Amino acid sequence: MRSIDVIFRWQDDLPDVSHTAVVVIDTLRATTTIATILANGAQAVLPVGGVEKAFALKEQDPRLVLGGERNNRPLPGFDAGNSPYDYPRAVVEGRRVVLTTTNGTQAVERTAHAPWVALGSLVNARAVAQAQQSAHDLGLIVCAGTEGQVSLEDVLAAGAIVLHWPQEACTDRALIARALFDKWRDHLYEGLKTAQHARAIIAQGLDADVEYAARLDLLPHAVVRNKEGWFVNQ
Amino acid sequence: MRSIDVIFRWQDDLPDVSHTAVVVIDTLRATTTIATILANGAQAVLPVGGVEKAFALKEQDPRLVLGGERNNRPLPGFDAGNSPYDYPRAVVEGRRVVLTTTNGTQAVERTAHAPWVALGSLVNARAVAQAQQSAHDLGLIVCAGTEGQVSLEDVLAAGAIVLHWPQEACTDRALIARALFDKWRDHLYEGLKTAQHARAIIAQGLDADVEYAARLDLLPHAVVRNKEGWFVNQ
Repeated sequence: MRSIDVIFRWQDDLPDVSHTAVVVIDTLRATTTIATILANGAQAVLPVGGVEKAFALKEQDPRLVLGGERNNRPLPGFDAGNSPYDYPRAVVEGRRVVLTTTNGTQAVERTAHAPWVALGSLVNARAVAQAQQSAHDLGLIVCAGTEGQVSLEDVLAAGAIVLHWPQEACTDRALIARALFDKWRDHLYEGLKTAQHARAIIAQGLDADVEYAARLDLLPHAVVRNKEGWFVNQ
Repeated sequence: MRSIDVIFRWQDDLPDVSHTAVVVIDTLRATTTIATILANGAQAVLPVGGVEKAFALKEQDPRLVLGGERNNRPLPGFDAGNSPYDYPRAVVEGRRVVLTTTNGTQAVERTAHAPWVALGSLVNARAVAQAQQSAHDLGLIVCAGTEGQVSLEDVLAAGAIVLHWPQEACTDRALIARALFDKWRDHLYEGLKTAQHARAIIAQGLDADVEYAARLDLLPHAVVRNKEGWFVNQ
């Protein structure tokens, strides 16, 4: 029987995911940016937790693009930040990108033992939902959250993915995410702006990134993990 | 500054509640039934976890009404079950009632150190929200959930309470609950029936209890804890 469930924060109790297709969501901004990097022609993207790990990978492969942020600011010595606008085709086409993020990476590591893992966001929600349902009958969406708190933007994107699962497959948590999406589906940018983390990002002058993250189904590809643990378009 | 937050399951991380007005919600059926018992003229209601504790209290005070359920069935030796219809005025007027419940009681015990605790449900959402805001600027709503899972019906009732707080006081979790309520506000019975626990209760022939639990603001009183730890109308 098909089933889709949603975890509102990666820190929460995780069910057994050994037969589950997992989607990790960090809408502002990691998973939105990774989907964009791949759409702009990058070969593969690896989210990593630590800056040291990123530099070590770059030493092994000088052609790598290093990207990332701490507190929504670009890192010294890096090629780009965590904004989707930092990765135009001219920068990333044909290259591999390592992106340091905090919450998104931790959520991905938490579900590393799942047989199938994808990264979800509003910009590729439909594609991710279709790929997830093709991969397994059991689906789980793990929201990254922000600094240990439930983030509205991640639950909103989860709802945009749940939307494509049959209603009878939905747990109560999935239905709650779906209701949040239903409320804002015609005004997603407005919806994102009610989220605390979105307001913090906007206060740092990154309004354009929030507006971009609200573009539902802008991109036609799901972002899935390959055998080497890198994420690629499917 | 005012703030209202929502915990989706009583097992989740609890913030410090030592200066917080806490509302505990177990919509199907404990907190709905307790509000009804008090509306029908009972003096006070005490939710307890164990059957033994209920019998011990009855030994001390034979006039007590004992109520409760296990797996949605009445208990042997008890006066009534956990349905609001088990407690008409003729049964409870002027009496004290002890109700055994599992989730609701655990959620109440978890927040026992809060300075103010109330029980919330759809049938008294407005009254509870007003009392909560009068009690403290910091509000927390704790959903009981069902067998360790998030229950849609409790988050729905939480949303009905959040509705009465100012938008700018809402955390992301409060806004998520609010969105769920907004989706179903004109069809609350239909909304409740999407919840897994509601469907289980209906399958046991208790449809009338679900229909009753959906009657928004039927009752004009908040249910608050007094100095002895019993719950009374306010």
